[in-house]
Amino acid sequence: MQAGFLCIEAGLTRSKNNINVAAKNLVDFFTGTLVFFFVGYGVMYGPSFGGYVGTPGNFLVEDDLFQHAFFFFQLMFATTAVTIISGAIAERVRFKSYIIIAIVVSAIIYPVFGHWVWAGLETGETLGWLGRMGFKDFAGGTVVHSIGGWVALALLLIIGPRIGRFDKNEDGSIQTINGSNLPFASLGVLLLLFGWFGFNGGSLLTLDAHVMEVIINTILGGCGGFIAIVLISSLREEYVSVYSIFNGILVGLVAITPGADVVSHPAAVVIGVVGGVLMLGCTNLLNYYQIDDAIGAIPVHLAGGVWGTLAVALFGDSELLATGLNFQSQLMVQSLGVVVAAFWGFVPSYLVFSLINRLFPMRVTPEQEEIGLNVAEHDASTELISFLSLLDYQVNSGDLSLRSPVEPFTEVGQIASRYNGVMDRLEDK
Amino acid sequence: MQAGFLCIEAGLTRSKNNINVAAKNLVDFFTGTLVFFFVGYGVMYGPSFGGYVGTPGNFLVEDDLFQHAFFFFQLMFATTAVTIISGAIAERVRFKSYIIIAIVVSAIIYPVFGHWVWAGLETGETLGWLGRMGFKDFAGGTVVHSIGGWVALALLLIIGPRIGRFDKNEDGSIQTINGSNLPFASLGVLLLLFGWFGFNGGSLLTLDAHVMEVIINTILGGCGGFIAIVLISSLREEYVSVYSIFNGILVGLVAITPGADVVSHPAAVVIGVVGGVLMLGCTNLLNYYQIDDAIGAIPVHLAGGVWGTLAVALFGDSELLATGLNFQSQLMVQSLGVVVAAFWGFVPSYLVFSLINRLFPMRVTPEQEEIGLNVAEHDASTELISFLSLLDYQVNSGDLSLRSPVEPFTEVGQIASRYNGVMDRLEDK
Amino acid sequence: MQAGFLCIEAGLTRSKNNINVAAKNLVDFFTGTLVFFFVGYGVMYGPSFGGYVGTPGNFLVEDDLFQHAFFFFQLMFATTAVTIISGAIAERVRFKSYIIIAIVVSAIIYPVFGHWVWAGLETGETLGWLGRMGFKDFAGGTVVHSIGGWVALALLLIIGPRIGRFDKNEDGSIQTINGSNLPFASLGVLLLLFGWFGFNGGSLLTLDAHVMEVIINTILGGCGGFIAIVLISSLREEYVSVYSIFNGILVGLVAITPGADVVSHPAAVVIGVVGGVLMLGCTNLLNYYQIDDAIGAIPVHLAGGVWGTLAVALFGDSELLATGLNFQSQLMVQSLGVVVAAFWGFVPSYLVFSLINRLFPMRVTPEQEEIGLNVAEHDASTELISFLSLLDYQVNSGDLSLRSPVEPFTEVGQIASRYNGVMDRLEDK
Repeated sequence: MQAGFLCIEAGLTRSKNNINVAAKNLVDFFTGTLVFFFVGYGVMYGPSFGGYVGTPGNFLVEDDLFQHAFFFFQLMFATTAVTIISGAIAERVRFKSYIIIAIVVSAIIYPVFGHWVWAGLETGETLGWLGRMGFKDFAGGTVVHSIGGWVALALLLIIGPRIGRFDKNEDGSIQTINGSNLPFASLGVLLLLFGWFGFNGGSLLTLDAHVMEVIINTILGGCGGFIAIVLISSLREEYVSVYSIFNGILVGLVAITPGADVVSHPAAVVIGVVGGVLMLGCTNLLNYYQIDDAIGAIPVHLAGGVWGTLAVALFGDSELLATGLNFQSQLMVQSLGVVVAAFWGFVPSYLVFSLINRLFPMRVTPEQEEIGLNVAEHDASTELISFLSLLDYQVNSGDLSLRSPVEPFTEVGQIASRYNGVMDRLEDK
Repeated sequence: MQAGFLCIEAGLTRSKNNINVAAKNLVDFFTGTLVFFFVGYGVMYGPSFGGYVGTPGNFLVEDDLFQHAFFFFQLMFATTAVTIISGAIAERVRFKSYIIIAIVVSAIIYPVFGHWVWAGLETGETLGWLGRMGFKDFAGGTVVHSIGGWVALALLLIIGPRIGRFDKNEDGSIQTINGSNLPFASLGVLLLLFGWFGFNGGSLLTLDAHVMEVIINTILGGCGGFIAIVLISSLREEYVSVYSIFNGILVGLVAITPGADVVSHPAAVVIGVVGGVLMLGCTNLLNYYQIDDAIGAIPVHLAGGVWGTLAVALFGDSELLATGLNFQSQLMVQSLGVVVAAFWGFVPSYLVFSLINRLFPMRVTPEQEEIGLNVAEHDASTELISFLSLLDYQVNSGDLSLRSPVEPFTEVGQIASRYNGVMDRLEDK
Repeated sequence: MQAGFLCIEAGLTRSKNNINVAAKNLVDFFTGTLVFFFVGYGVMYGPSFGGYVGTPGNFLVEDDLFQHAFFFFQLMFATTAVTIISGAIAERVRFKSYIIIAIVVSAIIYPVFGHWVWAGLETGETLGWLGRMGFKDFAGGTVVHSIGGWVALALLLIIGPRIGRFDKNEDGSIQTINGSNLPFASLGVLLLLFGWFGFNGGSLLTLDAHVMEVIINTILGGCGGFIAIVLISSLREEYVSVYSIFNGILVGLVAITPGADVVSHPAAVVIGVVGGVLMLGCTNLLNYYQIDDAIGAIPVHLAGGVWGTLAVALFGDSELLATGLNFQSQLMVQSLGVVVAAFWGFVPSYLVFSLINRLFPMRVTPEQEEIGLNVAEHDASTELISFLSLLDYQVNSGDLSLRSPVEPFTEVGQIASRYNGVMDRLEDK
């Protein structure tokens, strides 16, 4: 899952930031793991205080295979929630601020809400207050994806859009910022799909007869999102945007996540299709309000998670749901969960991160943003940057004949060498 | 498997088309899944009409784990057959034509032939007419790889080679078109190897004692193809082409696919070696007839599949084959299957797609092909393209001093900025 | 695992060599597999001569699932040892010399030492002389990683650093050589992590109750290495180098490898942290002695393996170790194993490869190194190289007006075309 997000996020961001983005995906996984192991897991699954919060700490019992497997599985969910955020706010946040965000989310925000819904899951006795009311979220549409999306939204409002993102082109259209490597991002979509099989299939917590039905529902959800994008593009007679195909597939996968175990195969396709439409709408809404979500995390994870959570009530087989609620009550409980997630995911994040931002500004300086975070945050020079330094030197010295310092060891060095040759000839003439 | 093909195909095609190629790998998977789920699976494994064709529709029974797992596994085969085609005809086909191809292949061409060989596989009672004659194709050397190859050949004859592909260089050699990202393609080869373990290992349909022997045969087949290329290159005292290494490994894997369960380990190596030699021969043949297979799908999948299917009779242990046929009869049945696949894979495809091509031309215009499908089909601009637009503006306006519209937000924007600086200095002088 | 190494090595080397590096990762896997299958496996696990060496040959018994699975698993270890070496000596070794190295290591050096430690592992009866003394190396910290590291060190001393690697910059600092694709390398780190789950989890050779504890220890080791790098960077108030993050994570994973089954979760973090510190120290040491390890294989695999092997005695639960040794004796046996690995990994390699190097020079010529191995070894031209040829032509002919041979089929061809346009305008002025 992390590998998939890494490819997508690094592929959809600009080459001047892609090293930073890729590194952040390692950072959130390893920071999140440490924090979730020592704190978050206890908050989520430790002894519960009335279904509202667990006890921080590490409660893994030695030699208990199931418990360790359950922890490992839950860890993957927790780090996914963090990664969703990193994608949305990419290309402008300080590296160290990002570590703070990962700590806060995996220690508190994610596991507290998780406790409300899933506490007791590992023993089969539901403890969380939302869970006890009959709120169903099979594999984290709300717990993981929406919560991640709401935190991302709060952060986006605090830090603001990337420089130039909403500048108007001459024809009045909005500037688009193009990804550096879309084939890499495509690989990421397939890796995510593969990871999703594990998430949704594994959420049964046992290899029972339904595991393959859940996995097939997962693919069909993705198919629904995909087909929605292709059909809408065809109707509008416009280009089929690759970016939309990615996010169409992903929103379909998110939307099927909360109910993959309780809906029929055709319903899975429908849920994906509606998810695709909502994703496009949400994207337009963000553009309208000039909220700059670098990889579309909010249209995909927030919108998809909300819709999928409601779809559990709309399409779920009540026998399989086994909450004892009728259609209307189930829908109300699902809606309640969605609203609670919105408050918990957005309000405390907005307050805490606003405060942190005032004390330690989260955003890099405009100069750093312009140079790109690869260089500004990691001094991660590339061959190209070496070449740029050479040109800089020429410009500053004004001496074009001074073309000796060619670094002959790289492909770019070889371009530079030929470039110098052409310059010489030009001067001769 | 899809992830592997995506890497290979996007890595071996040019950067102006690589987004389009990567997107197509998503498209064939998700289009193919929908079509195979609702139509193709029934055609292949639905109630049979005399062993000739199954009944379209979805016959998955709820709560049946094995059936759903079987469907999932078969789905992976079906989408692989489609992907093989996409690689061969890359860099020149309209995006929407490609969707039509994916539909036709996964609804009709692939599952009908599959029915002939594998119908009844899930119950153990062979129903297809070829299968009943004793035709053995363990994991799809003919059913998946050859059929994909034949359809690809038909399409290549219809749409013709890429512009400039068979232009002669000054020394009389043929133009080569270089891939954009060979390390990415290398990753694809390893991902495919990994996928192949699943395909061949899973084709036993049970975790029996032979699963690891099959997997070891699979690797050894790849080793054989690999070693053939290295030895031939050494004997000819020429460069070891990376492209040949890729295809040598892959053809070895294809060749061992139909008989991985019935041949000995040393035989697996031999089958791979012969596959490697045939692949080189087939590549030369395609060049001779000016058939432009962008990633070598025909030498790898068609030639490898044909050879591997015959090798089942040549090297297979008759006890393990359990067809009751003697050596000669088995060889004849295998040959018959190969010939039938050629007819079924090639003739109807050629007719159907020729007709479609007349009504809705499959090929992009020469202008679109020159610009590249990234832009022409998806409007997928990249940083580089933004820079090109700037240069275009300079050329058209003739005003070199007009260098202001530098997009400072990308690495390329930074090059542009330095480039402008150098230009200024040049003008000063 | 191979896929992970491929991404890391190709991503951390320069674009003029990255195809060569990626191809080598295929070569060592497929060469190593053939050699290990027919020779090395027997040397390691064949009938033992007094615990010192096994009998070369292939001793897999048909229909024995466990034995074939065990071979497959051991094969992955063997090819990993070879791959470690390939990374260290990247960017300067002849392709064919590299094949020879792969053969020698997977036929003799790796399996002989492996025999000393692990012979008898598959039956539970320890046969190797080091193993019988109580030397513990759970998943190959010494057997795989250190041995690979020592051979790499021997080769680095024989072939010397890359041209220009230790040239001083004007400010006295050492030249750094930047990788071509760090996001690709980041993906590699995650793929390796995933592979490591299989290596360490699988090393129990059975799905027993501890498999998940081992896997969680593995992640926590990586977390330890990661956190060490972040803290040290923060204390020094400098950039967080992405390269260090990669190697910090990896050294943590290596360090936990020999004892993942016998240490507690917090100890796993500590082992990782110490590993991270040692990695940084070892990197400085290599720079001081001007030993040019292209991807940091020695700091990561050699230093990490040595430390992790000693840590087994320092942190291991003696009951779980079950060697019957007290703390001091265990520490001495672990130290003995480390020293023996140093001798066996370094001395014979140094002698054999020195001899081979005298007969068939392993290193490419300086000209080839400058052009890059992509072109020099594989004639693997890329779009960029085609463009360079054009510029060369202009320089040599001195005729700037002669700008016609634009290859219009690639993105670079399109740059060339615009470049020509600008040149025309310039001449006009």
